[in-house]
Amino acid sequence: MRATTIHAPFDMRVEDVPDPVIQEPTDVVLRVLRACICGSDLWAYRGEAARQPGQRIGHEFLGIVEAAGSDVTGFAAGDLVVAPFVWSDGTCEYCAEGLQTSCPRGGFWGSVGSDGGQGEAVRVPFADGTLVKLPADAASDDRLLTALLALSDVLGTGHHAALGAGVTKGSTVAVVGDGAVGLCGVLAAKRLGAERIIALGRHTARTDIARAFGATDVVAERGEAAEAAVRELTGGQGAHAVIEAVGTEQSMRTAVGITRDGGSIGYVGVPHGSGTGLDLSVMFDRNIALRGGVAPVRAYIPELLPDVLSGAIDPSPVFDLTVGLDGVPSGYKAMDDRTALKVLVKP
Amino acid sequence: MRATTIHAPFDMRVEDVPDPVIQEPTDVVLRVLRACICGSDLWAYRGEAARQPGQRIGHEFLGIVEAAGSDVTGFAAGDLVVAPFVWSDGTCEYCAEGLQTSCPRGGFWGSVGSDGGQGEAVRVPFADGTLVKLPADAASDDRLLTALLALSDVLGTGHHAALGAGVTKGSTVAVVGDGAVGLCGVLAAKRLGAERIIALGRHTARTDIARAFGATDVVAERGEAAEAAVRELTGGQGAHAVIEAVGTEQSMRTAVGITRDGGSIGYVGVPHGSGTGLDLSVMFDRNIALRGGVAPVRAYIPELLPDVLSGAIDPSPVFDLTVGLDGVPSGYKAMDDRTALKVLVKP
Repeated sequence: MRATTIHAPFDMRVEDVPDPVIQEPTDVVLRVLRACICGSDLWAYRGEAARQPGQRIGHEFLGIVEAAGSDVTGFAAGDLVVAPFVWSDGTCEYCAEGLQTSCPRGGFWGSVGSDGGQGEAVRVPFADGTLVKLPADAASDDRLLTALLALSDVLGTGHHAALGAGVTKGSTVAVVGDGAVGLCGVLAAKRLGAERIIALGRHTARTDIARAFGATDVVAERGEAAEAAVRELTGGQGAHAVIEAVGTEQSMRTAVGITRDGGSIGYVGVPHGSGTGLDLSVMFDRNIALRGGVAPVRAYIPELLPDVLSGAIDPSPVFDLTVGLDGVPSGYKAMDDRTALKVLVKP
Repeated sequence: MRATTIHAPFDMRVEDVPDPVIQEPTDVVLRVLRACICGSDLWAYRGEAARQPGQRIGHEFLGIVEAAGSDVTGFAAGDLVVAPFVWSDGTCEYCAEGLQTSCPRGGFWGSVGSDGGQGEAVRVPFADGTLVKLPADAASDDRLLTALLALSDVLGTGHHAALGAGVTKGSTVAVVGDGAVGLCGVLAAKRLGAERIIALGRHTARTDIARAFGATDVVAERGEAAEAAVRELTGGQGAHAVIEAVGTEQSMRTAVGITRDGGSIGYVGVPHGSGTGLDLSVMFDRNIALRGGVAPVRAYIPELLPDVLSGAIDPSPVFDLTVGLDGVPSGYKAMDDRTALKVLVKP
């Protein structure tokens, strides 16, 4: 079969690789219907996160079960399923409490020796603990299938950020980052009852989606000007709940600057310098909390799925470019150039 | 009257200063019965926090109201009262929600132009918003008066740390820092129902107090050895709730290292390098939250006071050296030399 591999910075290839097979009785082999490229894949693409030459890539996908190991009880061939961006055994203490990202037997798609999602098929370890079944008829609904793909990462990650930021009914929320995760943070905050949602972003195509997702205000400024603008919108105090969905020093500095005293930053941007932007003295004086991290999206899918199925929330607008498998390398370039927000892959 | 002033690092003096008088109708003038020296005062003593020559110092005190301004409704001459370590107006939005440390009209005792607690008397701004009345008969109970003094800072700060760490009934807690705040963190965690409390500390005099306050385990190791010891005590996982009561790079590094995935660090050590010890990548991967900051102890006094009065909790053992006002400079030296844990001042 064919799958995407990374050989060096900016060197993405679509190559023939061995077909996945059941190796453990808890495995499933899944035929990928939809995958996508994540903002965090760009760290590898740019060489800022190390990869071995030929490593597989892609951690967001849904598809049809082709084969299930003898110990798999929850899935059978033909089932439509979505995979969260880490696999997990479903039986450990962390899985039981909904922190599947800390499962000792869990792992990331595309790590050395494992399959990535940007390919024709994937071997899924611990299928019962990892996958979530979707209604079979969703497979024939193109828009819905795309929306459901967001459950694999960006929607659950936005939800994690909103929880970390402490969003509740009536909250004032500010969102740093106009990528797919930031936009899903807007959607999640709206879903949790936020009354006012301030989206920081300069690209109209993105801030238009933010508004459609529930943003009540858009701040196009950056840096200190952005801080001033958010403060002006919030009676000088800042937002009680702030979502940080970038991971850089500047984005975290902005997040701290726009958080109201006693508020929280829900951070889900993979740290690439953001620690340096975290001024602990300021946070200490103002009692600003920091919560978040890698989102245990597996825990959130059961809660979010009904709202996606009903159409109460629709994250599909974050996908603004669709490619086939051969188009994946150009999809990376488009996201790196910021000409695409998030690239959908139909293998 | 006489009060403590700081003129340069290690140059503490007890000098004649003008008697405090009512300047605003919301002021009270208070005669100090008990004050003390805080671990955070040592940052000024050592020159690591700048002070102007002659600045007053001391932010923990209780005493008797001598005079009350015309707008003061809650207090009259003769009342026994305790002051939290910041004053606050009691009427703003932050005060209303219990974050008095962010009161725009609030301030710290000993800041330029204000009185400090390590003296014979103090002018208290916004007395109605700041002070809390104590039972008059406590004034004749030496042990109780000392215990009540802890409400001005260390007990409420330990409580803030325990809340930030997410301590609830049945929690496993680890406490980094064997100073008075760390020990009060142990006491607060026990009060909140923690089942297991691991105190990190090497000084038997201090860890004995920790055990008396409710610590179930003591770890005498430091650095990586301390992390290993805590992990061994917690099935390899670390403590779900961690109190950081020091503020240095090493203490924060240890705090991160001993926190269980998905847990929280409640930090109340004034940051002096602790930001550098905060490895955001580790926290991100393990979903470790950081909450805390300067404690709004004014908000906590009403909750903690009954338990101190009843003897349900007794923080008084943290005071292990008593001096008169003239002994304050030697008290600083004793705390800096770590021959005293916390110095009680009886002016």
